[in-house]
Amino acid sequence: MKELDSNTETSKPVDSKVTKGLGRRNFFKVGIAGTGLAVGGAAGLTIVRRMEGIPHEYFPMPVKDDFKPIDQRNVILTFAASKTLNEKHPERIRKFGNFHFYERYKNFRKGPFQNTPGYTQLDRALAVGGWSSLQALHGPYSLSSPDGVVGSWEQTMLWESKYKFTSEKEASIAIKSAAKLYGALNCGITRRDRRWDYEPLYDPAEERELSWEKDFPFQPKTVVVILAEMDYLAMSTAPSWVTDATVGNAYSDALKIAGQVAIFLRQLGYKAVASMNDMGINGPYAVAAGLGEAARNGQVITPKHGPRIRISKVYTDLDFVECDKPRTYGVASFCKNCKRCADSCPSKAITFDDPSWEPTYSDDPDYIWHAAPGVFKFHKDAKKCFRFWTENDGGCANCICSCPYNKPDFWHHRLVDAQNVVAPGPVHRFMRFMDEIFGYGKVSEPKHVLKFWNSGDKA
Amino acid sequence: MKELDSNTETSKPVDSKVTKGLGRRNFFKVGIAGTGLAVGGAAGLTIVRRMEGIPHEYFPMPVKDDFKPIDQRNVILTFAASKTLNEKHPERIRKFGNFHFYERYKNFRKGPFQNTPGYTQLDRALAVGGWSSLQALHGPYSLSSPDGVVGSWEQTMLWESKYKFTSEKEASIAIKSAAKLYGALNCGITRRDRRWDYEPLYDPAEERELSWEKDFPFQPKTVVVILAEMDYLAMSTAPSWVTDATVGNAYSDALKIAGQVAIFLRQLGYKAVASMNDMGINGPYAVAAGLGEAARNGQVITPKHGPRIRISKVYTDLDFVECDKPRTYGVASFCKNCKRCADSCPSKAITFDDPSWEPTYSDDPDYIWHAAPGVFKFHKDAKKCFRFWTENDGGCANCICSCPYNKPDFWHHRLVDAQNVVAPGPVHRFMRFMDEIFGYGKVSEPKHVLKFWNSGDKA
Repeated sequence: MKELDSNTETSKPVDSKVTKGLGRRNFFKVGIAGTGLAVGGAAGLTIVRRMEGIPHEYFPMPVKDDFKPIDQRNVILTFAASKTLNEKHPERIRKFGNFHFYERYKNFRKGPFQNTPGYTQLDRALAVGGWSSLQALHGPYSLSSPDGVVGSWEQTMLWESKYKFTSEKEASIAIKSAAKLYGALNCGITRRDRRWDYEPLYDPAEERELSWEKDFPFQPKTVVVILAEMDYLAMSTAPSWVTDATVGNAYSDALKIAGQVAIFLRQLGYKAVASMNDMGINGPYAVAAGLGEAARNGQVITPKHGPRIRISKVYTDLDFVECDKPRTYGVASFCKNCKRCADSCPSKAITFDDPSWEPTYSDDPDYIWHAAPGVFKFHKDAKKCFRFWTENDGGCANCICSCPYNKPDFWHHRLVDAQNVVAPGPVHRFMRFMDEIFGYGKVSEPKHVLKFWNSGDKA
Repeated sequence: MKELDSNTETSKPVDSKVTKGLGRRNFFKVGIAGTGLAVGGAAGLTIVRRMEGIPHEYFPMPVKDDFKPIDQRNVILTFAASKTLNEKHPERIRKFGNFHFYERYKNFRKGPFQNTPGYTQLDRALAVGGWSSLQALHGPYSLSSPDGVVGSWEQTMLWESKYKFTSEKEASIAIKSAAKLYGALNCGITRRDRRWDYEPLYDPAEERELSWEKDFPFQPKTVVVILAEMDYLAMSTAPSWVTDATVGNAYSDALKIAGQVAIFLRQLGYKAVASMNDMGINGPYAVAAGLGEAARNGQVITPKHGPRIRISKVYTDLDFVECDKPRTYGVASFCKNCKRCADSCPSKAITFDDPSWEPTYSDDPDYIWHAAPGVFKFHKDAKKCFRFWTENDGGCANCICSCPYNKPDFWHHRLVDAQNVVAPGPVHRFMRFMDEIFGYGKVSEPKHVLKFWNSGDKA
C-alpha cells in the first residue's frame, strides 16, 4: 500500500550541520538563485493571474459515489470531549491520549509547567486567554458541541420579511463585505453538501445524538465559509503553548465573525446558524467555497496565508446567492513533493504517501477516527496527532509552522507563490530546500518564543 | 466666554462649488504643493522620530486640584440605558432623544427603514450583526453595565501563585505582546487614577449603585488600555448605519481582547477585570497610557489611525509593571486650527472654541451630561450629540469620518503626519484645506455606501 515517491531522498530533513556549513558566500549564491527564481516568476502577468487559482465546476477532489457522511461521534474532538465515549473506550483514551480531554475543556488547561521556553506559566496563561473568548462565545465544554451560545439553533432576531437582493452576485458580495467588516480574512460561499455534514450529529456536552431532520430548525441551502488568521510569529514557536494561544484566539475570532454573519442574515429575514467544528467538516466546505486546497497535513492551504488560518461557517436557508467555484492553486502538486510537514510532525501522524482513497496507515481498523475513506486525498492519522497534543499538554501545529506556504505577507513571497503554480515537481523540491536554507518554518526554536514575547515592544 | 480663534474664517466649510471650480490644472498645482509639503516633511529624520510623540512625566492636560470623579449616572449612555433614570426625567429624554435607549439595547435596533443609501434593511442588518458579539460578550442591556459577561467581577480562573516577571519592563512588553496577539491595534499601560473612575458606579441593567470599596473585588493598581480598529471604508459612510456596524464591531473586538487579557493576567496570578464604557472614562486612560491625545471631537486621536479606534481597558492589581508615559503628537495644536469635525457635526455638539476649564455651551446647567468640568480641554455637548443619534436611529461618527487624521494607512499619509508635528498653525489650516481638496473625510456620501457594499468582491 505504501508507495513512496521515487524521489523521497530529497524530502528528508536538511541536516542542520549542512545548513550551517554552507557558509556566507554560498548562502548568498543560493540566495541569489532564489531571488532569480522569484524575479523569473514575476515576468509573466499570466502567472500572477494564476494566483487567483483555476476555477472548477465540481468539487476538485475525487469522491466515491458511496461516500457516507461521518458519524460525529467518530470525530476525534467530539469523542475526546465526551465523558460517555471516553468511559466506554477507556483503553482507547489511554492509547490515544494521556488524560480526559473533556476535563481539560471544562477546567481550562492546567500545569504542570515545564519551565522551558514556550512551556512556562506565562505561555500557558497566554494560551488560556486565547481560548477564553471561544469559551465565552461557544460554551465551556467543547469546540464540537452543536447549538452553542453564539451558534445557538434558536432563530432569535429573525426579521419578519426577507430582504430581496437584486441579483445572486449582489447577495454574494454583500455577505462577503459583511464578513470582512466583522474581521474575516476571507469568505467564500458554497451550497450545502450533505456529504460534509455529520450524520448523526452528536453533542458531547449534553451527551445526545441530534438529527438534522428532527432537531435542526430549518433546511440549510447554503454555507458561508469564514477564515480567521493565526499570528505568524506565535505560530513560529510551534509546538509550544504560544502556538496554542494563537490557535485559540483564531477560533475565537472565527466564531465571533460567524455569529455576527448569522445575525446579519437573520436580520435580512433568512434563517442562519453559526458553526465551529460541530455539525460539519470545515475543510471540504472551505475547498468547495474556493478558499484553498486540501493539503498533505490534513488542513486547507490558502493561496495567501497557507495553512495559517482557522475556519468557521454559517448554515443558512438563503439560496438566492452566487456560490464560489472551487479553485486549485497548485497546492496538491506542491504537497506531493514537499513533505516538510510530514518530516516535522512529532507523532508521525502525517503520511509520506501520495493521495489515496483510504488511509494508508493501519491502526484500530474498527475505529478510524477522523478519516474520510472514499475521498482521494492525503490521509493523516488523527489518533497519533491527538496523542502528541495530550503529551504536549497543548496543541502542536508543527505542520502549519513548517509549511512553505506559511509566510509573513511580503510581496516577494507572493512572487514565489505565483511561479509555483506553473513550476514542475523538481522545482517544488528545490523550493522546499530554499525555504529551509532561508530559515523559514523551523519548529521547536526557543529563540522564536523569545522573539514573540518581545513583539509587544512596538507601537 | 466664547473666544473664537482670530482666524476662524479659514475654518469655515469649503464651499463645494469652490472645490469643484478649481479645475484640473489648479487641482494638480495644489496637489504638487501638497506633495512638496509631504516630501519636505520627510527630509529630517528628527521629524519622523517625532511621530513617536513627546513623552511627558505627568498627565498632559491641566486638571484642577478639586476635580471630582463623575457619578456614573451622569454619563449619557448610562443615563439613557437606565429605565429608572429615563422615567425620572422623561422631559430630558424627550428633549435629548426621541426614544428610550434602553429598549433599543434590549431589542436591538429596529426600523423603520428609510430605504436611502446607508439606511436600508441591509445596512441595519450589518449594524445589528456588528453589535451582536458585544451583546454576547457583555450582556444584552448596555455598554455601560459594570460586571458584564466577559467583564465579570468574579475572579474565575485566578492562578494560585503569582508569576514573577524579572523586570517591570518585561511585564509591560509581555502584556502588550499578549494584547496584540489577541488582536489589539495597540496597547498602553498606566496607573489606576481615581479621577477617571466613576464614583459611584451605577449599573443601568440592574438599576443599582456600586461602590469601588464595598463591591469591587480588589484594589486596582494598574490599567491596561486596549485599542481596536474601526474599518476605514465603513467609517467613510458616516453617519449611515454602515458606520454603526463598524462601531459595534470594534466595540466587540475591544471587549473580546480585554476579556482575554483579563484571563491572561488571572492565569498569571493577578486579579483583573475587563471593562468597556463602564467603570471609568476610557479617553483619559488612553491619553495617560500614551496612546493618543484628547481632540476637539471629544475623542482620543491616535498618531497612526486618528480617531478611528475604540477603547477598552483592564483593571488589575498587578503593579510590578512599567507604565507608559503620556505622549503628545501635535494633535491638540492641529485641532485648534482645523475644526473640520465641528463643521461636519450634524447637531453642532462640537465646540468651535479653544480649550477651556468648563463647557462653553450653556444648556441645562443643573445637569451637565458627560462634561468633565475642571479638565482644560475641548468641551463638547454630549446631549446634542446623543439627540442626533436618536434622530438618526443609529450612531453618527461624522467627526471621526471627517477628521484629517483618519486616513487609510498609506506611507504618504504618515509623512504628512510627521511634518505636522513641527508645522505652525497656518500650515495646519492649509492641511485641512488640502484634505478637503483631495476628497478625504466627506460625510453623507451615498457613493461611499455603494463602495463599501462592493468591498467584499476581493479575495
